Amino acid sequence: MPDSPIMHEQIRKAVCRANMQLPAHNLVIYSWGNVSAIDREAGVVAIKPSGVEYDSLTPEKIVLLDLDGNIIDGDFNPSSDTPTHLELYRSFKNIGAVCHTHAPAATAWAQACREIPCFGTTHADFYYGPVPTTEPMMENAIKNDYELNTGKAIVQRFADLDPAEVPAVLVANHGPFTWGQDAAKAVESMVVLEQTAKMAIDTITINPQQGPINKALLDKHYLRKHGKNAYYGQK
Amino acid sequence: MPDSPIMHEQIRKAVCRANMQLPAHNLVIYSWGNVSAIDREAGVVAIKPSGVEYDSLTPEKIVLLDLDGNIIDGDFNPSSDTPTHLELYRSFKNIGAVCHTHAPAATAWAQACREIPCFGTTHADFYYGPVPTTEPMMENAIKNDYELNTGKAIVQRFADLDPAEVPAVLVANHGPFTWGQDAAKAVESMVVLEQTAKMAIDTITINPQQGPINKALLDKHYLRKHGKNAYYGQK
Amino acid sequence: MPDSPIMHEQIRKAVCRANMQLPAHNLVIYSWGNVSAIDREAGVVAIKPSGVEYDSLTPEKIVLLDLDGNIIDGDFNPSSDTPTHLELYRSFKNIGAVCHTHAPAATAWAQACREIPCFGTTHADFYYGPVPTTEPMMENAIKNDYELNTGKAIVQRFADLDPAEVPAVLVANHGPFTWGQDAAKAVESMVVLEQTAKMAIDTITINPQQGPINKALLDKHYLRKHGKNAYYGQK
Amino acid sequence: MPDSPIMHEQIRKAVCRANMQLPAHNLVIYSWGNVSAIDREAGVVAIKPSGVEYDSLTPEKIVLLDLDGNIIDGDFNPSSDTPTHLELYRSFKNIGAVCHTHAPAATAWAQACREIPCFGTTHADFYYGPVPTTEPMMENAIKNDYELNTGKAIVQRFADLDPAEVPAVLVANHGPFTWGQDAAKAVESMVVLEQTAKMAIDTITINPQQGPINKALLDKHYLRKHGKNAYYGQK
Repeated sequence: MPDSPIMHEQIRKAVCRANMQLPAHNLVIYSWGNVSAIDREAGVVAIKPSGVEYDSLTPEKIVLLDLDGNIIDGDFNPSSDTPTHLELYRSFKNIGAVCHTHAPAATAWAQACREIPCFGTTHADFYYGPVPTTEPMMENAIKNDYELNTGKAIVQRFADLDPAEVPAVLVANHGPFTWGQDAAKAVESMVVLEQTAKMAIDTITINPQQGPINKALLDKHYLRKHGKNAYYGQK
Repeated sequence: MPDSPIMHEQIRKAVCRANMQLPAHNLVIYSWGNVSAIDREAGVVAIKPSGVEYDSLTPEKIVLLDLDGNIIDGDFNPSSDTPTHLELYRSFKNIGAVCHTHAPAATAWAQACREIPCFGTTHADFYYGPVPTTEPMMENAIKNDYELNTGKAIVQRFADLDPAEVPAVLVANHGPFTWGQDAAKAVESMVVLEQTAKMAIDTITINPQQGPINKALLDKHYLRKHGKNAYYGQK
Repeated sequence: MPDSPIMHEQIRKAVCRANMQLPAHNLVIYSWGNVSAIDREAGVVAIKPSGVEYDSLTPEKIVLLDLDGNIIDGDFNPSSDTPTHLELYRSFKNIGAVCHTHAPAATAWAQACREIPCFGTTHADFYYGPVPTTEPMMENAIKNDYELNTGKAIVQRFADLDPAEVPAVLVANHGPFTWGQDAAKAVESMVVLEQTAKMAIDTITINPQQGPINKALLDKHYLRKHGKNAYYGQK
Repeated sequence: MPDSPIMHEQIRKAVCRANMQLPAHNLVIYSWGNVSAIDREAGVVAIKPSGVEYDSLTPEKIVLLDLDGNIIDGDFNPSSDTPTHLELYRSFKNIGAVCHTHAPAATAWAQACREIPCFGTTHADFYYGPVPTTEPMMENAIKNDYELNTGKAIVQRFADLDPAEVPAVLVANHGPFTWGQDAAKAVESMVVLEQTAKMAIDTITINPQQGPINKALLDKHYLRKHGKNAYYGQK
């Protein structure tokens, strides 16, 4: 007997697969991370259920919501970080997916309340400048609508930044969020962020005075992979 | 011919399984760690035998004792750390299991005689404040009844702390002990402690002046996962 | 039906195999590295295609070029780092292969703009002195013919060094390049460099004032493995 | 047809197996390490052949020598470190095996020319005091009979130390040697040394002023595992 069809199967499958990539890339232990994606035309966000471990995830367990957080379909509670994801989708109109983890090196920078300077071309290949850190949240913003206000702190930090050019942020005292066009890209940004964060710790261990690379090198590396003059990879 | 029944099979199985989780989580090498659990109604403590490697453990080899350390059943010597475990069970009336390892990052904090500050929400999700470190033990307490006195040093350190709110401690110059409702939870606390300890080392490498998160954020994260107003996970 | 023959099959196979060694040795994630080799008699350079992941590489996908960068055979774009490789082949007449990665510890030294001092015999067994770092590139050299100028910066740094004695370099703000007689040897130098770089970070963490080993020890270790009086290994 | 018998098969098998444990414990890459053992009654030392990789080792390839370095049996050159091993066997009359690697954390301490202080009970369980580092070797001792003089530098460092109580040493600017009653024990000491070295680096990162544990704690831990009053493990 065939399985009965499920709503929005494709985005659920993509989100399920992307969540399962988190432990495969050593970005999470237990259920410490979540990926969501949005189908903007349908107005549907698909997100990991709260507290469920990755190896028991199936597309059916992925929760569907609208942009206001109303559940459209799903038997589980959505991730407790859902209001943060939704705020990012409402404010960053061009992103298609969001990823959140407590990946250790990126989280260490978030805990240290420091942005990750662009120390080299590995960083510049993906992020067009430092990976910013939010301002620590005020007591009131923590006590009420905490997860929503986490999203607002990120959006505020990007007032003068383009989320397409820097698809990652560190929430102070907390950890990283990344995003991208689709769920796989949001996870890729998390993998790159963690590797970049690790190398940045070693860089300042070797040379505590090290400053960021110059603008010409940042431009060169970012723009050879992004934008209309990109020449990396296959056409 | 069927196996003959063993006494208290269920708790022995749980303790055996939890001990075997230690190398699976990279928390131990050789036989450097042990897990025990207590059946308070039966007055029985089940603990790993001393110096036996994890992959040769079976429920039958788990040693059963009463709370005074008298052996009830078992062909092996119990872990040499048994008097520490028993002291914790006698003093912390609500814990159901104890775990001890020399997990490297947590042990480094113990060796440095420093408590682990609550640097972020990863820590706050599990521990309601810093993970405390005991006072270094006096010469006399080391020479006589050392393992018992190790337990007493932990209990003394928790004079003003609730073991249910901070299910972990660092014994100065030695290493971590964790606990929980059951053997699996005690091991989970050890896994979380080691990850937290690693991230805390990187945090102070990045920013040696970094202080702990504020009380509002600690409350928010700890209480969204624990207590009557918790809203994380599935009901 | 047999496969149709491919041009220069042997060097393509060796380059394909060497590229696939990069993830096996944990030197790269995604497609962050490339190996090439040269057949000097035939005037042919074989190099990884740009942006292709390692597990989908086949000898057929390896691109063949001449020393001026003209494509001889191949359906893919060559690595975007190709002009760097070619400059090294043109200037270092005795090398047979080049490897480039963003291996994390070596990249941290490159990002810190520091050479790796010869802190011990592990280093001296392979490199006859410190592993040098290039000068940061000028704005003009970055804007025009960047990859070619990266090669020139390396060659300039070796004005007074013998590439056969130090088969590795760190490009400032970027990452390592290594070389060797053939593709396997170029990868071996990258593996050794990464291990050496990691140990050097720990060395200065333990003792920030540590200086390099003395000349006699450097000579002893380098020369017992290299040159006419070598006595390590089997004849 | 049965295999023809080989000389001293048992010790060759033990040495072969112990060498193969080195990569399994992540102590070596390539062929960067060697284990030997001695049969004192027969006057035979069995040691790894030079430059041969571990996965191609067989008992037949293990080289047999006498205590003066004369080859008794074997088709390969013995490890280039053989004179160091032999000097240790001649001077430390009670050891049965020697292990040498460039394990990264222990090598970092050797390169930093620092002994590893006894920072905790993990260390004290195996080593009765700090793991000592030799004096850097003089130019003349490097130029002539280098490997023999490496052994002499170790022996000199142990003038006031008991090799049975501290079965490990760091050769300055080089790396660790360990020993034990048999080949398996010598490797175990290397595993423990590497773990101890790693935790010691993190300990001084957390607290650069941290001193060693006190004598009572050192005695307690070392003596509960060693000597006539040991009470750890099974009888």
